[in-house]
Amino acid sequence: MNERDGATRIAILGAGLIGAAWAALFQHHGADVRVWDPVAEALGETPARMASPLAQLAEVAPDAGPRGTLTLCGNLSEAVSGAILIQENAPENIPLKHALFAQVEPLMGPDAVLASSTSALTWSELAPGLQDPARLITAHPFNPPHLVPLVEIYGTDPARIARAEAIYRAAGRMPVRLKKDATGHIANRLASALWREAVFMVQDGIADVEAVDAALVNGPGLRWSVLGAHMAYHLGGGTGGMAGYLAHLGPSQERRWAALGNPALTPDVQAALVEGVAREAAGRDIATLEAARDKALIAALIARRKAPHV
Amino acid sequence: MNERDGATRIAILGAGLIGAAWAALFQHHGADVRVWDPVAEALGETPARMASPLAQLAEVAPDAGPRGTLTLCGNLSEAVSGAILIQENAPENIPLKHALFAQVEPLMGPDAVLASSTSALTWSELAPGLQDPARLITAHPFNPPHLVPLVEIYGTDPARIARAEAIYRAAGRMPVRLKKDATGHIANRLASALWREAVFMVQDGIADVEAVDAALVNGPGLRWSVLGAHMAYHLGGGTGGMAGYLAHLGPSQERRWAALGNPALTPDVQAALVEGVAREAAGRDIATLEAARDKALIAALIARRKAPHV
Repeated sequence: MNERDGATRIAILGAGLIGAAWAALFQHHGADVRVWDPVAEALGETPARMASPLAQLAEVAPDAGPRGTLTLCGNLSEAVSGAILIQENAPENIPLKHALFAQVEPLMGPDAVLASSTSALTWSELAPGLQDPARLITAHPFNPPHLVPLVEIYGTDPARIARAEAIYRAAGRMPVRLKKDATGHIANRLASALWREAVFMVQDGIADVEAVDAALVNGPGLRWSVLGAHMAYHLGGGTGGMAGYLAHLGPSQERRWAALGNPALTPDVQAALVEGVAREAAGRDIATLEAARDKALIAALIARRKAPHV
Repeated sequence: MNERDGATRIAILGAGLIGAAWAALFQHHGADVRVWDPVAEALGETPARMASPLAQLAEVAPDAGPRGTLTLCGNLSEAVSGAILIQENAPENIPLKHALFAQVEPLMGPDAVLASSTSALTWSELAPGLQDPARLITAHPFNPPHLVPLVEIYGTDPARIARAEAIYRAAGRMPVRLKKDATGHIANRLASALWREAVFMVQDGIADVEAVDAALVNGPGLRWSVLGAHMAYHLGGGTGGMAGYLAHLGPSQERRWAALGNPALTPDVQAALVEGVAREAAGRDIATLEAARDKALIAALIARRKAPHV
């Protein structure tokens, strides 16, 4: 579809890996995609960066309909004008993002949504960059954004949040809403909590890096790909469900929490982590590992179409 | 295969859900399975409990070859005699397990392995139940044991550990070795660490139960089904890998750890969890949720055959 057919116009600000993945995702799902980057060279590389995501999307979402259009924009106004969603992927730097927002805001339509992909920053830190903070949401994708469905959303204008969620859903994403601003949103808080214990087990000598990873991928990780953590304890409670679990095993769970580790990334621990992933990688470089990850993710996503998660 | 053909003889002690899943798994993979339970009624129900796991295994592992044999044993000696692996699934009670081990040990062959499925207890707590503790390993499966591949192993006799691992591998399991005894082994320590933050986000009002679960299943959970947590940070470090990640983002990760929550399972939090999973279940009872989980797990495992995890 092109804009004459009423295709959704979406601006992508910042043409790095995340920006290119968003651009591929939205173009694959029929949008009129405008990409802007202040660095001409980065902008020029956008189609090359989108090639692999586009090929992967053809496997994962073959029924998305005709591909949309891609326009590389040398100036911000051309990208933002007429866009209903402006997905910002600038470096994680508050003054830099504030300066960008000050340029974007006068160019936005009155109902448009400015969505920041920020991972490290919060809505409250970014909102002071706008005259009207209601225009801003945080919309954090999980890497790689064109494959992993999660988009974590926080904002203050329910109507804009709902419009943004509809756009993400139409692109096959799963928007999840925070009720309150939080550093790390939901997913990176979970990832950080899990990794703390994963690092502790290496530091404490309970298990090697590669054993921890193998346990996760073949155990709870596999289960969490089909069942949430809360729901897993609901099923762990037998016929009594979560209430039964809490009544019988709540106290032992609290004791277990108290016994979890609190590691520090000392030079020794860092060395153990670096050596451990090197053993686990077994000679595979980053690109090879990423390709294996993406291939497995694509197979898992295709499997989901037949048997959805709980 | 039957024992005349030299099929591996495996004793399953305790015919509850875990015992029945082990029995189905080993029978599906051609073993001569002997099941014992002190309660005649439980023993009699074993074939009925095995029916669904056996049907699921036919989907997940269709190439396992001819099914083995199943013998229900009214006395312990009949089950243990000649078994090279004795998988114990008694209640999580130290004196009870010690009493059982005292009965089992004189009946075991000299090279046989006594493997406890214990989730809550450790090898060090169980070993005093034997004259020769080298005969004991902990071999903790992850629920449901016939589908989720992980078996976490700790013991002191390398030869017995290696023999047990070979038996689990032949049954399509992924044994993972601990270097040191630890409560919760590896997987439940990871699950407990993650759930602590999941509960904290509900307690603190950051997100609802169902939002936390949706974020996990569509984000890190999906990724951890194909990629370990350590390896994920290796890929998050760009071309610098884990060393690059630690150099640039190690300090911010330590700050994030310090900011993670420390919830308590107060009556209010318990009520929020119970109400949240009820909304998420949306009227589905435990059996329906388990069936959906198993169907999705089976699809994920079949997808893995085509595209293995990293």
